[in-house]
Amino acid sequence: MTAKLKIAVLGATGYSGLELTRILLHHPRVEKPLLLRRAAEGSTPSDLAEIFPALSGNGAYPLHPLSWSWLKQEGVELLFLATPHEASRTLAPEAIHEGLRIVDLSGAWRLKQARHCAIYGFRDADTLKAAELTEKAIYGLPELHSDQLPGAQLVANPGCYATSVILALAPLVRADLLNREQGIISDSKSGVSGAGKEPTAKTHFVSVADNLSAYSVFNHRHVGEMAEQLGIDTQELVFTPHLLPIPRGILSTIYVRLKNSTTAAAIESCFRSFYQHRRWVRIFATPKLPQVQFSLNTNYCDIGFCLAEDGQRLVLVSCIDNLLKGAAGQAVQNMNLMYGWREDEGLQ
Amino acid sequence: MTAKLKIAVLGATGYSGLELTRILLHHPRVEKPLLLRRAAEGSTPSDLAEIFPALSGNGAYPLHPLSWSWLKQEGVELLFLATPHEASRTLAPEAIHEGLRIVDLSGAWRLKQARHCAIYGFRDADTLKAAELTEKAIYGLPELHSDQLPGAQLVANPGCYATSVILALAPLVRADLLNREQGIISDSKSGVSGAGKEPTAKTHFVSVADNLSAYSVFNHRHVGEMAEQLGIDTQELVFTPHLLPIPRGILSTIYVRLKNSTTAAAIESCFRSFYQHRRWVRIFATPKLPQVQFSLNTNYCDIGFCLAEDGQRLVLVSCIDNLLKGAAGQAVQNMNLMYGWREDEGLQ
Amino acid sequence: MTAKLKIAVLGATGYSGLELTRILLHHPRVEKPLLLRRAAEGSTPSDLAEIFPALSGNGAYPLHPLSWSWLKQEGVELLFLATPHEASRTLAPEAIHEGLRIVDLSGAWRLKQARHCAIYGFRDADTLKAAELTEKAIYGLPELHSDQLPGAQLVANPGCYATSVILALAPLVRADLLNREQGIISDSKSGVSGAGKEPTAKTHFVSVADNLSAYSVFNHRHVGEMAEQLGIDTQELVFTPHLLPIPRGILSTIYVRLKNSTTAAAIESCFRSFYQHRRWVRIFATPKLPQVQFSLNTNYCDIGFCLAEDGQRLVLVSCIDNLLKGAAGQAVQNMNLMYGWREDEGLQ
Amino acid sequence: MTAKLKIAVLGATGYSGLELTRILLHHPRVEKPLLLRRAAEGSTPSDLAEIFPALSGNGAYPLHPLSWSWLKQEGVELLFLATPHEASRTLAPEAIHEGLRIVDLSGAWRLKQARHCAIYGFRDADTLKAAELTEKAIYGLPELHSDQLPGAQLVANPGCYATSVILALAPLVRADLLNREQGIISDSKSGVSGAGKEPTAKTHFVSVADNLSAYSVFNHRHVGEMAEQLGIDTQELVFTPHLLPIPRGILSTIYVRLKNSTTAAAIESCFRSFYQHRRWVRIFATPKLPQVQFSLNTNYCDIGFCLAEDGQRLVLVSCIDNLLKGAAGQAVQNMNLMYGWREDEGLQ
Repeated sequence: MTAKLKIAVLGATGYSGLELTRILLHHPRVEKPLLLRRAAEGSTPSDLAEIFPALSGNGAYPLHPLSWSWLKQEGVELLFLATPHEASRTLAPEAIHEGLRIVDLSGAWRLKQARHCAIYGFRDADTLKAAELTEKAIYGLPELHSDQLPGAQLVANPGCYATSVILALAPLVRADLLNREQGIISDSKSGVSGAGKEPTAKTHFVSVADNLSAYSVFNHRHVGEMAEQLGIDTQELVFTPHLLPIPRGILSTIYVRLKNSTTAAAIESCFRSFYQHRRWVRIFATPKLPQVQFSLNTNYCDIGFCLAEDGQRLVLVSCIDNLLKGAAGQAVQNMNLMYGWREDEGLQ
Repeated sequence: MTAKLKIAVLGATGYSGLELTRILLHHPRVEKPLLLRRAAEGSTPSDLAEIFPALSGNGAYPLHPLSWSWLKQEGVELLFLATPHEASRTLAPEAIHEGLRIVDLSGAWRLKQARHCAIYGFRDADTLKAAELTEKAIYGLPELHSDQLPGAQLVANPGCYATSVILALAPLVRADLLNREQGIISDSKSGVSGAGKEPTAKTHFVSVADNLSAYSVFNHRHVGEMAEQLGIDTQELVFTPHLLPIPRGILSTIYVRLKNSTTAAAIESCFRSFYQHRRWVRIFATPKLPQVQFSLNTNYCDIGFCLAEDGQRLVLVSCIDNLLKGAAGQAVQNMNLMYGWREDEGLQ
Repeated sequence: MTAKLKIAVLGATGYSGLELTRILLHHPRVEKPLLLRRAAEGSTPSDLAEIFPALSGNGAYPLHPLSWSWLKQEGVELLFLATPHEASRTLAPEAIHEGLRIVDLSGAWRLKQARHCAIYGFRDADTLKAAELTEKAIYGLPELHSDQLPGAQLVANPGCYATSVILALAPLVRADLLNREQGIISDSKSGVSGAGKEPTAKTHFVSVADNLSAYSVFNHRHVGEMAEQLGIDTQELVFTPHLLPIPRGILSTIYVRLKNSTTAAAIESCFRSFYQHRRWVRIFATPKLPQVQFSLNTNYCDIGFCLAEDGQRLVLVSCIDNLLKGAAGQAVQNMNLMYGWREDEGLQ
Repeated sequence: MTAKLKIAVLGATGYSGLELTRILLHHPRVEKPLLLRRAAEGSTPSDLAEIFPALSGNGAYPLHPLSWSWLKQEGVELLFLATPHEASRTLAPEAIHEGLRIVDLSGAWRLKQARHCAIYGFRDADTLKAAELTEKAIYGLPELHSDQLPGAQLVANPGCYATSVILALAPLVRADLLNREQGIISDSKSGVSGAGKEPTAKTHFVSVADNLSAYSVFNHRHVGEMAEQLGIDTQELVFTPHLLPIPRGILSTIYVRLKNSTTAAAIESCFRSFYQHRRWVRIFATPKLPQVQFSLNTNYCDIGFCLAEDGQRLVLVSCIDNLLKGAAGQAVQNMNLMYGWREDEGLQ
């Protein structure tokens, strides 16, 4: 048996970072991950199980201050960044300079240079280094870019909403079935962990429970990723996110019109052939539709659809667990492909 | 002071019927309602507070077997039917024959004759009596038909989803602002009380909690009402209901395209002028949007919107409490207008 | 008709203050309350409906900076303090000095002087003014102290947990039925609004949903109130609060042992006679038990019980809505009795 | 590597059976389990993934009609019964007659003969066969009876509530630290999956959400197990179960008094030494307490405590996932020990 990969996680104290750590702890190909914290996070507590008692009982999970020299000394090859996008924007170039490979779970490297400037407001957007790295970064949606992952130095893990929307639309867009002039609409709903661990008025239990609310209409950052990856104009897509009173899970209901009248069988076949070798997409035969619960705690993206009697109006339903296929699970899937392992290693 | 109206409620043991009873018990213009049960419901328990202990402490709520002669003897003038649509279809003609006025909360009399036949499968659809009564029935959405309510003998209280969708679209359709060829999409989400009190696999707590699911895509009955009331073809409207993990409340996110580029101010003005004399519609100025919680336990329909930069793509958000503005509250609002009272009597 | 009472609310932006404002807006005996904010809260927003859009549609709810002279000028007689206990401790003496009557919803004046010092750490505890006022303050649990309310200048509204526990135990303690040497245990569970509106890690939706946790075991502040009002030693009572994944409501399960074997009928009779003239306590006949939902959105305290076959081990279940009978509703009930009105005025 | 064990599951369509199937599918020591259905369940659907779409994407899960000859032919050695207790009472003797070993998740074989008669009302209670088998059955709480599991033919998997209560009390009872005359109280709260998959008025989402209710006070069946396993009289224990608005998880808050004043360190030490070799019990050092979330989706029983200043009043908090340590996880733990494998095989 070959030696296991040495890895590290920066940001294990957030929801995605915790989920990532859980998976990596049981991944057969990697050593127990080194857990890092940024200076900004302070020094206490010093063990992840103090923050997440659910982890206790399996030994220690020490949180080390980030140090490039120490990582080198420990033989770490791959670093997961589960950090805010501003931090990732600074840290990724440093890490790559140190010879590490990176899977970044933030939005820092997902978009083309100009768009990053506009959407994330990075002031480095026109510097040479950032421009170079942006060009090198691989958008880590393995169902679209698995061939580019083995050589990737920097993988930009997709946004959770973006994953659910892109995977539902890519087969139809690539097959040029959509009447895009009629517009594409994604009405998406996400559990609260998607809003992060920071306590705010918006994430207070009393604000969320017994409620549903739409937000960021016409200006959510993930629209940039969706448009780029689907090769459409942002104007062609209306995306409305909603905050669901559940801890995790995303369901996107997507409305499109087909160029020509077609059959449910043809739609299903389009999806099945597009994803025929992909382990983590499940296609539901009409009239069955995915529900949030079905993909919860899994790395699956579930896709179903209903076609109107006219054969043209099509409703797609796409579900993922926002912390797995929408974040940590996908990050591990990306690692698996970067190292030539089976796509589902450690994810079953 | 004039004498109070004598009223009765058939079906107080369901969610809408209970809510209706609660409101009527405190309504200043009516006497304590007589509560009736159908033969099919059996004879026990004989008091509503045995089923809903929350009601106890304010005297008795006896459930009487339905009897037309007894209602006449008691001087009842108005009967609320909170019954399944099959029962309402049979009972309403009988009640009218007995000289009662009716507010029916079911779907039995909401649609034109032909459509009823197709959607609800009523076998009486071509009989003379049913046809006559269908013609007489007033669709009880007071914001559209308040002028017809004073003389109404049979008021068909709208469906909950239909109320949220029609109120959001009517001002735009009437003003002919929509590019209807591009389609109208309503992505609607409802709390579980909308599915009724019957325990089923679908309403089991474990099936609903931590979940979201779409259902009845392209074939929900309320689409008929929406199309009729808006004066559009059912083909122009895509309606997708979803089951939310909350007890009550509806949020509809509605996607339309405008014929001509316009401003948010013009949209707001269109809504405000359409509803300027209506007590139970609240318009939210962009960028504020309604949330389910805001209209919970009220009879309001809250409407907000976001207009894209192109001035043409418009997202509407419409919220109601499905048991109030979507059922019992609207039934009382209809009664108020049938008897010439203030629209918000007993509903504040 | 006599003139309506002029009142003001300080702290309407919190959960209890909002609920209080809602009730007072529809109370037939009082004028629309003046809403005040403390300097510490800053100046924006200036209208309560901006914070709670659910309130909108009924005119303005301006938030005024607190000013004694302005209150005097407006003719305000009664001031509700829905403020943190530190603020109430400072403001109540000032307000009384200005001739106002006070209902304080905080814990600032609920306990005897020495205990306040120990539990709340007030540094003024030994000053003459605080000592005097503490002595004057009436513990506003109307079921125990209704006779003292008409003359009260300062009413200390009870804690939510304390209300649910004291009302369930008082009849048994007063009748000297309990074997107190065996201890009294209250296992209480509260919805999240009881923890206040401040967003914290503890109130984050993801921390609360799908969870239950005990906290403050052996050191919750409300134990002081319970012991004082029941006339027992704090050592005789074990009180364990838990945080429930619901927005509001409290259920206390209380375990006691009776001195002598008795019957369920005798227990029920003890409760019924103790509360026979009290509007807001409902006694459940065994084996029926109250549930959180039954008293939600009401001012009731619901009490039920189960007696073991030995006639000595007794389990009590007591439920309230923590924001109503546990806070705002009780505050209004206190006002009603202070002014000689019916106990349920404005609370039905 | 030795051949994998051949196993079967009867009742995979219930919540516990599904969870059990999930675990067994990934257990390294067993072959893919044969899934069986009883005649009473009818014949459709024929695949478990049709009932639980979450399972799909990993091949077929055919449901076979129960047939002893077919099980023999397939070489099945161990049968899990996830059936109602009446069914288990009939099937276990048959299965044992056929040479199978049994892990039964129901209450059919947990109690001594006389008690079974009284609590479960089995009419066979005095027959020779049932009496014999009752005597042979091992109560499958591995933390107490691991030495008896290797030779067991019939393992009676404990009740969920019983597991949480017994594990918290056993160390203290065995060490004779409790003043049992003062009584032992367990106030337990469970998620809804504990009530089973049958849709009832009690499990309807609207009945459970935003609610909490106590039930079966003084007459829950699990009290029999608790008393037998702890070696106490049922009169010494007051057990009150409550229904929580969460899908899964149990938290028991347990109140005891110690014979002699002691220290928190001594209590902790008592627990740690009792469970020192047990993989699936986690002890929390005071003042830390377990929460439902911590043990969710794990096989852990988490135990914490708070000791009053008097060193005698002790509050214990015990949490499990009712479907894992309270059912399916424990069943697998039992299997592991029956076959001499590591206790956590397949459960990590």
